Amino acid sequence: MTITVAIDCMGGDHGPQVTVPAALEFVRDQPDVRVILVGLAERICPLIGDVAIGRVVIHHASEVVAMDEAPSVALRTKKDSSMRVAVSLVKSGEADACVSAGNTGALMGISRFVLKMLPGIDRPAICGILPTMNGHTHVLDLGANVDCSPEHLLQFGIMGASLVSAVEHRDRPTVGILNIGQEEIKGNDVVKRAAELLWDSGLNFVGNIEGDGLYKGQADVVVCDGFVGNVALKSSEGLAQLLATFLRQEFRRNLLTKLAAVIALPVVNRFKNRVDHRKYNGATLLGLKGIVVKSHGSADAFSFGQALQRAAEEARSGVLLRISERVAQQQQPLLEIA
Amino acid sequence: MTITVAIDCMGGDHGPQVTVPAALEFVRDQPDVRVILVGLAERICPLIGDVAIGRVVIHHASEVVAMDEAPSVALRTKKDSSMRVAVSLVKSGEADACVSAGNTGALMGISRFVLKMLPGIDRPAICGILPTMNGHTHVLDLGANVDCSPEHLLQFGIMGASLVSAVEHRDRPTVGILNIGQEEIKGNDVVKRAAELLWDSGLNFVGNIEGDGLYKGQADVVVCDGFVGNVALKSSEGLAQLLATFLRQEFRRNLLTKLAAVIALPVVNRFKNRVDHRKYNGATLLGLKGIVVKSHGSADAFSFGQALQRAAEEARSGVLLRISERVAQQQQPLLEIA
Repeated sequence: MTITVAIDCMGGDHGPQVTVPAALEFVRDQPDVRVILVGLAERICPLIGDVAIGRVVIHHASEVVAMDEAPSVALRTKKDSSMRVAVSLVKSGEADACVSAGNTGALMGISRFVLKMLPGIDRPAICGILPTMNGHTHVLDLGANVDCSPEHLLQFGIMGASLVSAVEHRDRPTVGILNIGQEEIKGNDVVKRAAELLWDSGLNFVGNIEGDGLYKGQADVVVCDGFVGNVALKSSEGLAQLLATFLRQEFRRNLLTKLAAVIALPVVNRFKNRVDHRKYNGATLLGLKGIVVKSHGSADAFSFGQALQRAAEEARSGVLLRISERVAQQQQPLLEIA
Repeated sequence: MTITVAIDCMGGDHGPQVTVPAALEFVRDQPDVRVILVGLAERICPLIGDVAIGRVVIHHASEVVAMDEAPSVALRTKKDSSMRVAVSLVKSGEADACVSAGNTGALMGISRFVLKMLPGIDRPAICGILPTMNGHTHVLDLGANVDCSPEHLLQFGIMGASLVSAVEHRDRPTVGILNIGQEEIKGNDVVKRAAELLWDSGLNFVGNIEGDGLYKGQADVVVCDGFVGNVALKSSEGLAQLLATFLRQEFRRNLLTKLAAVIALPVVNRFKNRVDHRKYNGATLLGLKGIVVKSHGSADAFSFGQALQRAAEEARSGVLLRISERVAQQQQPLLEIA
């Protein structure tokens, strides 16, 4: 089976300079994929040059959604934007998934408008991956929803568990809820009620996870509202940047420390490679009738390539079907009672 | 002027083993302070031994609040706990401030019950310090309030700014609000409304701060609800632990990396010292009619000493008066309108 990924080539801080080389590398690496490069053809073509392009299609789109454009404006006025066309290719079935490094709000709005929600899911959630002591964990929502009901958090749990079980072939991934203490009495009312729903859901729910527990691998999937998830993610990023800056400054302090830096370089490089956030690039917009992956806006080609791989992997493993089945199963007992 | 600090010696993971030596070091270092060591005298006395104790008083308290005890139970049943007695010494004026490494919920409940709130402040907030690229920032609330109204967030801003301006002798410290984007349209309704109040408050408000902005020093004071603040703090801690563990593992990988570690040791130590979280220990419970500082439960003597210094510094600089004046000033225009 060939997997087709539509790529919004104009999105992100660097646009085609990054997205096109990453796409070409991606088709070279993965023999079962083809890509549709969506965007201004006059910007994309020169970057392809004389590369033999068996599985590469260029799909011209005349407009570009700016990184700081209001999502509502992008949705209403730019019907031929590279972002919207890429999403529409998923809707029409011409692509199995799409990837964009563009404006998150616009991508969310367009995806929701064009693809619609899966039955039984009220809202899309952004699901990202964080490294942990013993592997990685999936966290959602990372910023699509600033106010969530307990039912939304339950749906996030179902979607996250379905994603992990499809992509990582795991039977019953563990699910936790982000909270400010491990005891059941902790947290606000929404979180407490959501925990009750999750205990009763049939998911492999493990209860409350504190902020530091995110990185300890205490659950395969951690649910939270988008405000909290976004703050957790970004404050971690901020601290990582602070630590990296301070470490660099110390190694550059004088001749002696610079010598130490040269000697420690292989170790530091292994460390950097291990915690390289680029490896975790690519957040899935879950809950839609189609696979949409959001790349970080500042992604480089390596990083954007990770998002492409994630999209292909989700298409291969039938994530959408898995979520739909799980949601239907969840609704079953309710229907029987009714 | 002598500053008297009441210390709950029984609180924290290590109890008197940590709190008593830290207290003795503290009086040795600071000629203008005296301490009241509150707790089981039979546990405290042996640790003092034959140290000349001019400015050290032991105040026996027969009960201990357990770290995992329900705050309501501690408040209702343990009238002679070291925590409650320490707080009561502030209430009676025998101490200018108190410090505890005990159960946060119990300390909050007891402090609120015994000391009461300052006029014009509805709820206490936990205010902590985080390191930034260019110094440090004060963040509140870090976990006292899981649901906040816009008015509460405004009060946090006033209290945080008053604290910084008193302790750090700064005229108009900058105040930001933690949000998930820098644009004004971002965030949930509470945060948007709080930002409006803060713009109109006369504080030096700088608008939205994202999670990563916490560590960039974008504001001297950052306000948020306690759920979000707690998650931001703990997820940062979790990531720091992850990075430290990975770096250690890489340096211990084989003989060659161990050699590199020895050579890099002075640099790594300088780095560790610079980001040493122990230096930032001591969170203030703001909004009460008295100074209460909460130390991390796992604090060692150095770390607990930082919390003691913070308490003394706040007492010296008249933080409570500063907050009261600022709150009164805030209410002035409202009264005039009414």
